[in-house]
Amino acid sequence: MTLEGRFDEAAGVIRVGGDARQRYHDSRGYGYPLEGNEIALAPVEAAHLLYRGDLGAVVTKSGERLEFRSFMAREPGAKFGVRFLVYADLRERGFYLSPAREPWVDPPDGEADFAVFPRGKGPGDGEIEYALRVLGERTDVPTAELEAGVLAIVDEESEITYFEVSARDPSGSSTAALPEGCDADLLEDRVVVWEPPLELYERGFYGQPLEGREYDEPTLQCSLLEAASLAERGVIDLEPETVRKRGREVEGERFVRRLAVYTALRERDVVPKTGYKFGADFRTYADVESVENLGHSELLVRVHPDDHVFEPRDLALDVRLAHGVRKTMVFALVSDGGEIDWWSIERLTP
Amino acid sequence: MTLEGRFDEAAGVIRVGGDARQRYHDSRGYGYPLEGNEIALAPVEAAHLLYRGDLGAVVTKSGERLEFRSFMAREPGAKFGVRFLVYADLRERGFYLSPAREPWVDPPDGEADFAVFPRGKGPGDGEIEYALRVLGERTDVPTAELEAGVLAIVDEESEITYFEVSARDPSGSSTAALPEGCDADLLEDRVVVWEPPLELYERGFYGQPLEGREYDEPTLQCSLLEAASLAERGVIDLEPETVRKRGREVEGERFVRRLAVYTALRERDVVPKTGYKFGADFRTYADVESVENLGHSELLVRVHPDDHVFEPRDLALDVRLAHGVRKTMVFALVSDGGEIDWWSIERLTP
Repeated sequence: MTLEGRFDEAAGVIRVGGDARQRYHDSRGYGYPLEGNEIALAPVEAAHLLYRGDLGAVVTKSGERLEFRSFMAREPGAKFGVRFLVYADLRERGFYLSPAREPWVDPPDGEADFAVFPRGKGPGDGEIEYALRVLGERTDVPTAELEAGVLAIVDEESEITYFEVSARDPSGSSTAALPEGCDADLLEDRVVVWEPPLELYERGFYGQPLEGREYDEPTLQCSLLEAASLAERGVIDLEPETVRKRGREVEGERFVRRLAVYTALRERDVVPKTGYKFGADFRTYADVESVENLGHSELLVRVHPDDHVFEPRDLALDVRLAHGVRKTMVFALVSDGGEIDWWSIERLTP
Repeated sequence: MTLEGRFDEAAGVIRVGGDARQRYHDSRGYGYPLEGNEIALAPVEAAHLLYRGDLGAVVTKSGERLEFRSFMAREPGAKFGVRFLVYADLRERGFYLSPAREPWVDPPDGEADFAVFPRGKGPGDGEIEYALRVLGERTDVPTAELEAGVLAIVDEESEITYFEVSARDPSGSSTAALPEGCDADLLEDRVVVWEPPLELYERGFYGQPLEGREYDEPTLQCSLLEAASLAERGVIDLEPETVRKRGREVEGERFVRRLAVYTALRERDVVPKTGYKFGADFRTYADVESVENLGHSELLVRVHPDDHVFEPRDLALDVRLAHGVRKTMVFALVSDGGEIDWWSIERLTP
């Protein structure tokens, strides 16, 4: 026998009696139990049961009988369509999930749409695998709202991409003794260091050798970030402020933020090199012993001010590219005071 | 014997006598011939000869003897540093190249820094392989300046990426007969088409089937772009203007531009699907016979207004990603009147 539900519009739930508790809740993780055998379903749960043909109809207070199409067309609440798609997708992948609120579950911290249970577990088992937030591809994400968890982004053709967001503190073991007082010239937007001791490049991985002639100690071209860092520590004979000033001239406040991140990475014994070819600010090497035996760079770092607003489309592009080159995408969010928050975002297959 | 050059500051060239013509021009493609055996070198050519140690010094009118370092520090002209790097890089790769102007060469069309000769050829052979424009990574490129040729972009750490820019007219052979008057509902920012004939999806590749239940004729979710196009041709029973209005509500003018490109691609028998996962507007399939036997999508298309200004960093990101997934990056530049200019940009290894 197919059951029908009653729309309790005041509470925003669909009540189902009969053997609903055993049939939908206990064995398949829908809804939460009420008195007796009755259960209450969230609209997204009721929509899924209607869609599967498991629930015959939902009857409104005014006596209207809603089937899947008419239930969807009422669009109860904002982003109902995308939440339904994600709910159905995870169900299809064999997971149970509930609205991330009382009385379905003990709500997880932060803003979330669903609590997803570990595979094989349900709402009664007291375990939550992760909190899931659902976004349409046009919904912007302010950095202040970033929090550890999973994002599901539904694109305009209703395909879903899952991203795992985690706090990420880069650290490494790249330490190298540096020379002092090397001869350097500031040229437009780069710095030439004239034939410094080889270890500046070979161990410290600063600069890029000028090619085309053979020398034991090659002349290096350094970026303004590298040069500002080297000047600050007396490695090259330029005034740090002169280099920083040139940086701000060619790149504005962006240079200040990037220098804060560059400096923080070097302090953590991680070597940042330009991420230009990947469209990022830096690619990083955690454990440089020598440039001759350089490993794979592990992270792509993009620097943003801490009031930046992410467009899901840009997130998708960054994370996709990083994934394609076997690196992890990290966002460094810099406050006006120079403090840095680090977040990694990676694709996830539930 | 090492030669020296005289800086002819008025003409902006360095004159070299002795056997310079034979030694530098005839056998190695530097400069242009003057009277007798004398030649004139552009500053970038002289810098390269100084750098290689082939030219001993350049003497200024006031009698100053410049060697490589002091010559570079004078920075004659804007972006001299980046032009030198590209000149040296191509020389290192075995190519000869000249400033793209009289009297070095018959100037190629458009804005270019260098004329690069075919491998094994030089300035006297009357053949130009391509016109090359040099940009620093912070130099913006307005779309109006895009032209067929090669861009060399020098990043902040002095690495060079070469891009080939070409006009690109997409075309394909994806034609499919479409049904009429299918039942559809507009839901927030997408459209559900209720159980249309299978060929709408299977041959026309419109929409995305709702999964989780088995039907011969699956219900499709279409993007607003797909729905606007289908409504316009009477395939679904929604008013075209209703769909377009919703599109403008959720996406503004961007929707209008994307619809122009979507429509143009369909008219060229190319199937556009969302490029969201690649951070682009569309991925395209030129020759769809059926979704079951779908080939690889060939292009990633990004839509911009025709007054867009490219940042080299964004170009690098787009082209890199497209290359990584074996697709060609195409930019569709849309005028206010809806006309479209198509350009492909691909990485090039000289």
